[in-house]
Amino acid sequence: MAPRPDRRPGGRTARIRAQVVDAVRAELAENGYQGLTMEGVAARAGVHRTTVYRRWRDVGGLLVDVIDAAGEIDWQPPDTGSLRGDLTALNQEILESLVVHPSFAVALMAASFHSEQAAQAQTQLWADRYAQCEILVERAIGRGEIPAQHTDAWSLLMVATAPLYHQVVLLRADPDPRLPERAAAAAVLAAVAGAFSGHREESV
Amino acid sequence: MAPRPDRRPGGRTARIRAQVVDAVRAELAENGYQGLTMEGVAARAGVHRTTVYRRWRDVGGLLVDVIDAAGEIDWQPPDTGSLRGDLTALNQEILESLVVHPSFAVALMAASFHSEQAAQAQTQLWADRYAQCEILVERAIGRGEIPAQHTDAWSLLMVATAPLYHQVVLLRADPDPRLPERAAAAAVLAAVAGAFSGHREESV
Repeated sequence: MAPRPDRRPGGRTARIRAQVVDAVRAELAENGYQGLTMEGVAARAGVHRTTVYRRWRDVGGLLVDVIDAAGEIDWQPPDTGSLRGDLTALNQEILESLVVHPSFAVALMAASFHSEQAAQAQTQLWADRYAQCEILVERAIGRGEIPAQHTDAWSLLMVATAPLYHQVVLLRADPDPRLPERAAAAAVLAAVAGAFSGHREESV
Repeated sequence: MAPRPDRRPGGRTARIRAQVVDAVRAELAENGYQGLTMEGVAARAGVHRTTVYRRWRDVGGLLVDVIDAAGEIDWQPPDTGSLRGDLTALNQEILESLVVHPSFAVALMAASFHSEQAAQAQTQLWADRYAQCEILVERAIGRGEIPAQHTDAWSLLMVATAPLYHQVVLLRADPDPRLPERAAAAAVLAAVAGAFSGHREESV
């Protein structure tokens, strides 16, 4: 009933996937999750709808693949020479992705409230991205900017970046242009003062 | 076509509103925004559907009223005697509202991605709640815990509380039981170090 998707890299299979992923991104950004249909994606991608149904099955399958594709992009965290500079640059990047109209990032977050498959794929993508960003904290420790002993990179990155998402995505407030720099500075000052020292408890 | 809603306090009108608001909360928490219908709310509330249509018009109208009702609750921010204690208690409250199953708070956030009316009402509710929380910062300044000169209460509150929402609502990570205290401590240490001094620019 559900044939295994053909994962061969390159060639016609890869080309069709690229066309479909691009179409999903465009449809999501323009019409949101509510307007995302297998037929709309097939038409926009110029791919036969039976192909789209066979390989992606349903809208959840399309969302998972577009999130997987985002994870395959060779993204690198900023490297400005200081933790404050790195976190500010990261926050600027985040803010731009959220305030652009239409925002693919915000459309994906909205979709994740309605598709458990999409939510799981997005949680994995976030986890990978934050894991990549831990290098910012390691480099800062190497430069002696923040305490070496058990600085919890994950909590530090949460404090630095969460205010951007909260303000724009959930609060829908006008973006404060100083927030990227201010949240970055707050995270660094808190780290210097030892706010993130001590191992993170895995569970209680 | 759209009769003005009857806003008389007390009596039958108020009773029907309370029944409908309770029903919307229950339906939202159980079935989410996608499952919210005028008929379902009317049935659950035990109110005639024509009454529900006449007074709330559509699902957007129901959402706005349930958010307004949340704003009418006499909520007070914590008062523990220290900024760190207050912010930790606030974060614990936030975390509980997000991880409870089913979570009315999370259901409302999801709904706000699909109803512009609900989004506006929720943005207003957030703004009111954060404005109420500014007293925590004022009291801390009064006690000499943080610098008096232009500490930007709003940015401080963002840094303190946003990590909770980000982790649970958007990242859907397992809640870190230390995060409420840790994010609160980070915000206080950053404030002491002057991270939130200087007026917030209103616009650029």
